[in-house]
Amino acid sequence: MRSAGCGHEGTTVTRLRCADWSCKGTTVTRMCSAGWSCEGTTVTRMRCAGWSCEGTTVTRMRSPHHAGTDCPKENKNVHALEGVFSAACTLEETTLHVTDNMDLHILDHRLRVISISKNGLVNFTHPLIKLIFLRSRTRCKFFSLTETPENYTVVLDEEGFKELQPSEHLMVEGSIWLPLNVASNGNASSSSQAVGVTKIAKSVIAPLAEQHVSVFMLSTYQTDFILVKEKDLSVVISTLEEEFNIYKEVGGESVPIHCQDVPNGLQKNGKEAIQPTVHPVVIPKNQFCVMSLDPDTLPSIATTLIDVLFYSNSPKEDAANQGLDCIKFFSFSLIDGYISLVMDTEAQRQFPADLLFTSSSGELWRMVRIGGQPLGFDECGIVAQISQPLADSDISAYYISTFSFDHALVPEEDIVSVTDMLQHQRKDPAAS
Amino acid sequence: MRSAGCGHEGTTVTRLRCADWSCKGTTVTRMCSAGWSCEGTTVTRMRCAGWSCEGTTVTRMRSPHHAGTDCPKENKNVHALEGVFSAACTLEETTLHVTDNMDLHILDHRLRVISISKNGLVNFTHPLIKLIFLRSRTRCKFFSLTETPENYTVVLDEEGFKELQPSEHLMVEGSIWLPLNVASNGNASSSSQAVGVTKIAKSVIAPLAEQHVSVFMLSTYQTDFILVKEKDLSVVISTLEEEFNIYKEVGGESVPIHCQDVPNGLQKNGKEAIQPTVHPVVIPKNQFCVMSLDPDTLPSIATTLIDVLFYSNSPKEDAANQGLDCIKFFSFSLIDGYISLVMDTEAQRQFPADLLFTSSSGELWRMVRIGGQPLGFDECGIVAQISQPLADSDISAYYISTFSFDHALVPEEDIVSVTDMLQHQRKDPAAS
Repeated sequence: MRSAGCGHEGTTVTRLRCADWSCKGTTVTRMCSAGWSCEGTTVTRMRCAGWSCEGTTVTRMRSPHHAGTDCPKENKNVHALEGVFSAACTLEETTLHVTDNMDLHILDHRLRVISISKNGLVNFTHPLIKLIFLRSRTRCKFFSLTETPENYTVVLDEEGFKELQPSEHLMVEGSIWLPLNVASNGNASSSSQAVGVTKIAKSVIAPLAEQHVSVFMLSTYQTDFILVKEKDLSVVISTLEEEFNIYKEVGGESVPIHCQDVPNGLQKNGKEAIQPTVHPVVIPKNQFCVMSLDPDTLPSIATTLIDVLFYSNSPKEDAANQGLDCIKFFSFSLIDGYISLVMDTEAQRQFPADLLFTSSSGELWRMVRIGGQPLGFDECGIVAQISQPLADSDISAYYISTFSFDHALVPEEDIVSVTDMLQHQRKDPAAS
Repeated sequence: MRSAGCGHEGTTVTRLRCADWSCKGTTVTRMCSAGWSCEGTTVTRMRCAGWSCEGTTVTRMRSPHHAGTDCPKENKNVHALEGVFSAACTLEETTLHVTDNMDLHILDHRLRVISISKNGLVNFTHPLIKLIFLRSRTRCKFFSLTETPENYTVVLDEEGFKELQPSEHLMVEGSIWLPLNVASNGNASSSSQAVGVTKIAKSVIAPLAEQHVSVFMLSTYQTDFILVKEKDLSVVISTLEEEFNIYKEVGGESVPIHCQDVPNGLQKNGKEAIQPTVHPVVIPKNQFCVMSLDPDTLPSIATTLIDVLFYSNSPKEDAANQGLDCIKFFSFSLIDGYISLVMDTEAQRQFPADLLFTSSSGELWRMVRIGGQPLGFDECGIVAQISQPLADSDISAYYISTFSFDHALVPEEDIVSVTDMLQHQRKDPAAS
């Protein structure tokens, strides 16, 4: 069902794109936008809940903009929540907030991007286990660890960074990175149903690429973080403030911010657009899933997760993977209390089936790994190059940058068309 | 009840010292010796099950000599089993085996004794977590880690030792140590009810001290390991073979061994007995418990155990302990698949109450720490000095040697008499 413009009470709908009006009692597997009230609705996956939705059972809610994070927790019915919100309003108190703009939040984390060498990981087991499992012992609020065949990429805030001792096995990217997060408004009349980086391709990724702002993407189960260098912040704001209401999170408060508020404001990079490099891509054969976990059950998978993260890097296991054209890729993140895991189905089998959860459709994803040589941190347009055509085709994509390469995850059923698209792009870069 | 010489069917007994005859249907919390049949009996703690005990439910069995380890596992009713036995006989097949001697087993492990400095532990988190939690990744079968205020003591076999990289934070005692284990015979007419090192004080500890054999003790929930240096083995055998049937475990088999079988056999140290040093002791105020855990539930306490072992060593927490005259002491061992934990009640509170188990009487223990200066590994008679008077008074004691000091644990209710005894010993060393 594309649009439920009027009341369809009692209907069972697998995919509902827009529920502009009331649809009380409806069972919806996937709801794109619940612009109005939908009391009593059972929604497996809800993109935007712009209005009140008292009594609704939502398995996955991407953007409950007005509701705020505190409500769904009280409601206890939302398993995963995309977007980070500071307002502690209740669902009942929600009021209409009409705007043509979407909201962009500059989150209150100053991040470092680090690589740990493969054989150097043993030296960092102690701080990493602390950061992953012992929340009471650290003030780190943003932590991500991704294993690739080359190395381990760690993205973490300054509190977490303090835990890591300098070492020959550690490479620290020189910049401070700030994570941005797009919160779709309830009434944002997006025509796209795609999730992930695809939905911000035209509004965020492309404009930043045009302004020569390098981005480091980190998609998680809950949301997509766009990391930009702190020094580029004024350019970022001046570039995006036409399209977005921009807020800076400061100590739990969302403060509106404008270009003139930022030192070196109003400044754009202003370089001429140059033809972006078309990087070679690899499409490994393994299938990936993007999962989450109740933080309270993290101890239950501790030994398995420790085994997979810290002890699975034997030459034998790697060789077995390589032989099958598979890639070693495992990502764990714990950001503002939310856990996200990206792993292939081989790794997934090691975990108890009842603790990790993914969207009810149980999608599997295929990887497009971008880059022949390490990409570095200065080149612009890499994410744009792949996310724009995905947006044109309305294909969802998670996107995870690492220290050396970038990784897009697209739905398994779309991998053929994505491959075709990329081959076309390589032959005719100017067309993209 | 001290002795149930005849039938007391249906009686409920808290402590039964000798059940020489049948006591069908009896519920016994602690049974010292079940010399005859006790079908249908529910026993929480059984010291010696010399005869058949079909259908018996035993929470803790110290020495099922004739039954062998395989039976209780099939029976599924024994939670902890003291002693290591190779025979795979069934309870039904048990036959009377009369001998005046007890059995001493030289176990099939070649051990190293290591210390890791307090601030060096972070460098060993990776291998230690592997040895503790990831049994499928290591062939180490004997592992013990004890934290004391000075350092961490690790006792482990050669497979485990391979996992530890040399480091300035690691001190390795030069000897190979062999663990001995006494298996009480069913009909051993011991008059003692005490457990732990006390029951082997006169038969093992004292004779070895007289022959100048240095021992390193490691009591666990399940049994007491007497570690001797490999170079002393011939002296050990010649010293103990009058009192014991000595077996060497070789690839799962128990092979009888005699003095002449050992290189340098028949050799005794033969030094003259010298007056042993009386070491100062400290009696910290904390109460300890000696616990065990089903190895299958080890993952459930993984994050707590990791926290306690690897992250609790902050100056702040240590200072808090010191102020109360308490000692930092925590011991974990995983030996031949059996887990033993010794911790104070403060640490115990951090663990889920339903997973760790101890004897149903829930005894608490007080510590006597022996040594003002680090004791070294060559002095003889240290264990004997404390275990002999304990044996004279029939007071149970666990005994845990570490790299620097020795630690005896005695029942809380006996600490006053033990303290008196030790003060007397200091005043008049010759009398002890």
